[in-house]
Amino acid sequence: MSNSSAAALLGGFTGRERLVAQLMFIVEAEKLKTVLRRTRLLDRSRVENDAEHTWELALMASILAEHSREPIDLAKVLKMLLIHDVVEIDAGDTFAFDKSAVLDQAERELLAAERIFSLLPDDQTLEYRQLWDEFEAKETSEARFANAMDRLQPTLHNFLTDGGTWRTPGVTIEDVNRRVAPIAKASGSLGDFIDELLDIAIREGFIAVT
Amino acid sequence: MSNSSAAALLGGFTGRERLVAQLMFIVEAEKLKTVLRRTRLLDRSRVENDAEHTWELALMASILAEHSREPIDLAKVLKMLLIHDVVEIDAGDTFAFDKSAVLDQAERELLAAERIFSLLPDDQTLEYRQLWDEFEAKETSEARFANAMDRLQPTLHNFLTDGGTWRTPGVTIEDVNRRVAPIAKASGSLGDFIDELLDIAIREGFIAVT
Repeated sequence: MSNSSAAALLGGFTGRERLVAQLMFIVEAEKLKTVLRRTRLLDRSRVENDAEHTWELALMASILAEHSREPIDLAKVLKMLLIHDVVEIDAGDTFAFDKSAVLDQAERELLAAERIFSLLPDDQTLEYRQLWDEFEAKETSEARFANAMDRLQPTLHNFLTDGGTWRTPGVTIEDVNRRVAPIAKASGSLGDFIDELLDIAIREGFIAVT
Repeated sequence: MSNSSAAALLGGFTGRERLVAQLMFIVEAEKLKTVLRRTRLLDRSRVENDAEHTWELALMASILAEHSREPIDLAKVLKMLLIHDVVEIDAGDTFAFDKSAVLDQAERELLAAERIFSLLPDDQTLEYRQLWDEFEAKETSEARFANAMDRLQPTLHNFLTDGGTWRTPGVTIEDVNRRVAPIAKASGSLGDFIDELLDIAIREGFIAVT
């Protein structure tokens, strides 16, 4: 639905400005269900969207939390993951292996963050914007683990779908190694696992070596 | 992909049985992206699937936590929500207003819970099965709030899409009131909001009164 019709319907609840602002943010974020990524479902039937991708990352974080090198506050990791892609409502999904699109990605996403988080009540605008900034900066244990999940998921999907986006022309093992590097930073056991997985992927011809 | 091919690929990682069990659970749960619900996206383009529905519930819980009547452990609410629908991989989504399908729903879902949570390492089988049982029992503050989100989301979608599934022949205001009752149990402010929202929905003709 359009933002204006949601605003018209929800704006009628006078005395509930705080709740309405929270719901308007949720109505806006819901558009993530229509932002498509390059990663395919494991059954290969279609590409996934940002909303279901985000759910899978959050589930992974919940199940795999014990693999973090450092102690993490799981609630913080999950809150961070749940909103980490909302900027893509405006900025679109930037294909990780598209070197030209990546160039102005940060600028496009910063503008989106300004607009979208400001839909929330002021205190939550600040809280969720800080969580998003923290995710992007990758400097806390929670941000490192959340980013590791964001890299592990497409890696697992590519491996289980005969290479997936790794087979895009021009993508090499150096590009893939750069993408997975945050996994080993956050987790020794997951980093070691990914090393083995990429060895098999190369042997199977899923990733171009030369 | 089929479970057997995922098992063949992941089973090759010897000495990583625990991690492989965790990933096999994630691979199985990923099928929620293909389990369709009756609720439509807010842009009405299609019905939503369980994976993206679950993400929206988790986001709602994160943003709306302050509305809980009782203190809640948000990490627990989120973990509970992230797995609350995995049983639908086997049991399918049961349309809330389909009175005959609801009859054997519990039985079908119990069998599914047995199978799916047992993919995890033993300690996590226990932990996630307990979380699912707790969600179903609705007896703790976390389960009550998680269930409230599960009722609030389709209510909001129906309201913002001119009635949505409320317009299914045979559905009356009594059925809708029964579905939304868990919202007021978990939250006074959300319960009051839903009362007002249903008044408008009836006035707009979204819900049959007689």
